[in-house]
Amino acid sequence: MGARITAIYRVAATADSIAARAGGIAVEQSVEMPVSAIADADVLENIVGKVEDIADLGGGIFEVRIGLAVATTGPEPGQLMNMLFGNSSIHADMELHDVIFPDAVLAAFGGPHHGLAGLRAKVGAKDRALTCSALKPQGLPPSGLAAIAGQLAAGGLDFIKDDHGIADQAYSPFADRVPAIADAVRRARAADGGRTVYLPSLSGHLEQLRAQVKIARDAGLDAVLIAPMITGMASFHALVRENPDMAFMAHPALAGASRIAPPLLMGKIFRLMGADATVFPNHGGRFGYSPATCKALADAALGSWGGLKDCVPVPAGGMTPERVPEMLQFYGRDVMLLIGGGLLAAGAAMTQEAAKFQDAVMHG
Amino acid sequence: MGARITAIYRVAATADSIAARAGGIAVEQSVEMPVSAIADADVLENIVGKVEDIADLGGGIFEVRIGLAVATTGPEPGQLMNMLFGNSSIHADMELHDVIFPDAVLAAFGGPHHGLAGLRAKVGAKDRALTCSALKPQGLPPSGLAAIAGQLAAGGLDFIKDDHGIADQAYSPFADRVPAIADAVRRARAADGGRTVYLPSLSGHLEQLRAQVKIARDAGLDAVLIAPMITGMASFHALVRENPDMAFMAHPALAGASRIAPPLLMGKIFRLMGADATVFPNHGGRFGYSPATCKALADAALGSWGGLKDCVPVPAGGMTPERVPEMLQFYGRDVMLLIGGGLLAAGAAMTQEAAKFQDAVMHG
Repeated sequence: MGARITAIYRVAATADSIAARAGGIAVEQSVEMPVSAIADADVLENIVGKVEDIADLGGGIFEVRIGLAVATTGPEPGQLMNMLFGNSSIHADMELHDVIFPDAVLAAFGGPHHGLAGLRAKVGAKDRALTCSALKPQGLPPSGLAAIAGQLAAGGLDFIKDDHGIADQAYSPFADRVPAIADAVRRARAADGGRTVYLPSLSGHLEQLRAQVKIARDAGLDAVLIAPMITGMASFHALVRENPDMAFMAHPALAGASRIAPPLLMGKIFRLMGADATVFPNHGGRFGYSPATCKALADAALGSWGGLKDCVPVPAGGMTPERVPEMLQFYGRDVMLLIGGGLLAAGAAMTQEAAKFQDAVMHG
Repeated sequence: MGARITAIYRVAATADSIAARAGGIAVEQSVEMPVSAIADADVLENIVGKVEDIADLGGGIFEVRIGLAVATTGPEPGQLMNMLFGNSSIHADMELHDVIFPDAVLAAFGGPHHGLAGLRAKVGAKDRALTCSALKPQGLPPSGLAAIAGQLAAGGLDFIKDDHGIADQAYSPFADRVPAIADAVRRARAADGGRTVYLPSLSGHLEQLRAQVKIARDAGLDAVLIAPMITGMASFHALVRENPDMAFMAHPALAGASRIAPPLLMGKIFRLMGADATVFPNHGGRFGYSPATCKALADAALGSWGGLKDCVPVPAGGMTPERVPEMLQFYGRDVMLLIGGGLLAAGAAMTQEAAKFQDAVMHG
């Protein structure tokens, strides 16, 4: 039989019912019809999902492994999501926990173009952790955002990304905002000769995304922020493949909490499609991820995986400069620390706060 | 202050904590930074989310209404999803329950081009319920799918859609499959002079979607199936706007169960973006929606809404011909009944089963 992707689901069920439930998932995520009504031997052998394993995890939770035919997804990112969890996402009693991809599938999607080494090289960092801040608030005109970006960059930060809420709004159009901010960031680093990489936030459909990448490139930028669950995985992947010179940071907006395991979605799948860095809510911040989830996500993003480049974990979501030592302890040096509001709250002292953050990471 | 969209969340909280939690949501879904650090009066007045109301629903659940500035979303579908539920989707203790849009926002997105009356007109139905079946299984070559489509159409069905798992796979490329199926369906109805509308399933990014619409149109088709949560809302909306002659049926793949209320997502938001019909799992089938959820979804899709055309509810997911009378009783005549596997299971008697289904609906 042809190559299979192994989708690993966690399902709430009873020992009596799990075999039938697993069989149901295998059908739901492939042919979605009574198997007894399928006459074609090739479809039965090579297309219908196969239950590969069922394990009782205790507490009424079972881990079900389903072999899905690679032929049904092809190398199409949206169809991959569809076959992994399309209809089953509607079942409230199961989550998509993990996926094992054949190496040929990894190679077909391609993963990140830059990864950790590429992002470090952009800012002249050797093997240390990287820093990042977020440009806010949305609602300011380009000049206002550029002024704040300049103050943050003057502190020597490695990366500054747009807040993910900043799009192509009438009060701050992408085409006006991005060159102004890029320029302010460059000027802020002219004195010390260092580089701060600014990542504008992209939005819209593929044509709009392409136009925004062009504006970014014309402004001298080589990195962008994107939310794959909002743009759709196919648009995200196409944009990455078309722009190998650009580094892509993925944002978890609309990625949900509970139905696709965060280490799989934000660690593996975003990486598979080409994210060089992946933003996620760190434990102990505004969101409810556990330390174990965060560690698993970072491991998934960084681990050796079929020759794909790695994807930099970017823990965020209510972090403060005070937490830098503890975060470095937890994540090590293969990480980008993102502090947004925690720096912006310093107001006039923003540059000093940014410099302290940068210093703590560089010498932490 | 500028126009606001009212986002209605349901949040698990205590009476002591809900005011702070509501304030946190208002910030998270707008400026996402400490409000005390915002100096700009215009941002404070016109951009920061506002808590409009908090109601105790009992049982530890509160309904929180947040006014989100229309200026932050613009008329961009992805950014609308981002501002409604981007970061908050990561909070496991809340769901996006409903949204109240100003009429100007409804007009800006535009809604369906055809709606119930348009779909009825395509098949010469006056005020009766419509029928639909699903073409399966994926894995068959174009000739195999065309043969099944022909057998179903010969029963006189109104609509036949591709299974949502059928994409542009190597074993059945869109460009080969769609004209073959369209032709088979047409030939099957040549004898009785009626029309069965075939809806091929679209996949991929905007450029691929456009190419597929062109193939469909060239094959004489005027309706398609699409899964907006997989393609991304922006691609879906752009495709609808660019193709006013095409009717769009929305599929719920990847739409999840628990974090955006189904009546809102599949009823209202898909309709707002332009779905002429919306497929959803009927109660009592393979999925867990309650009768109340299904009724609310149908009401949202059909109800009077700022001058937008209506969107036909299409209950599905394990339905059988035996349930037709009960479903007509439940939904009335403003509905399209979808039976896929339940007809395909009849094998050689598929045409007779399809005819019985059609007859039961036409005279039900």
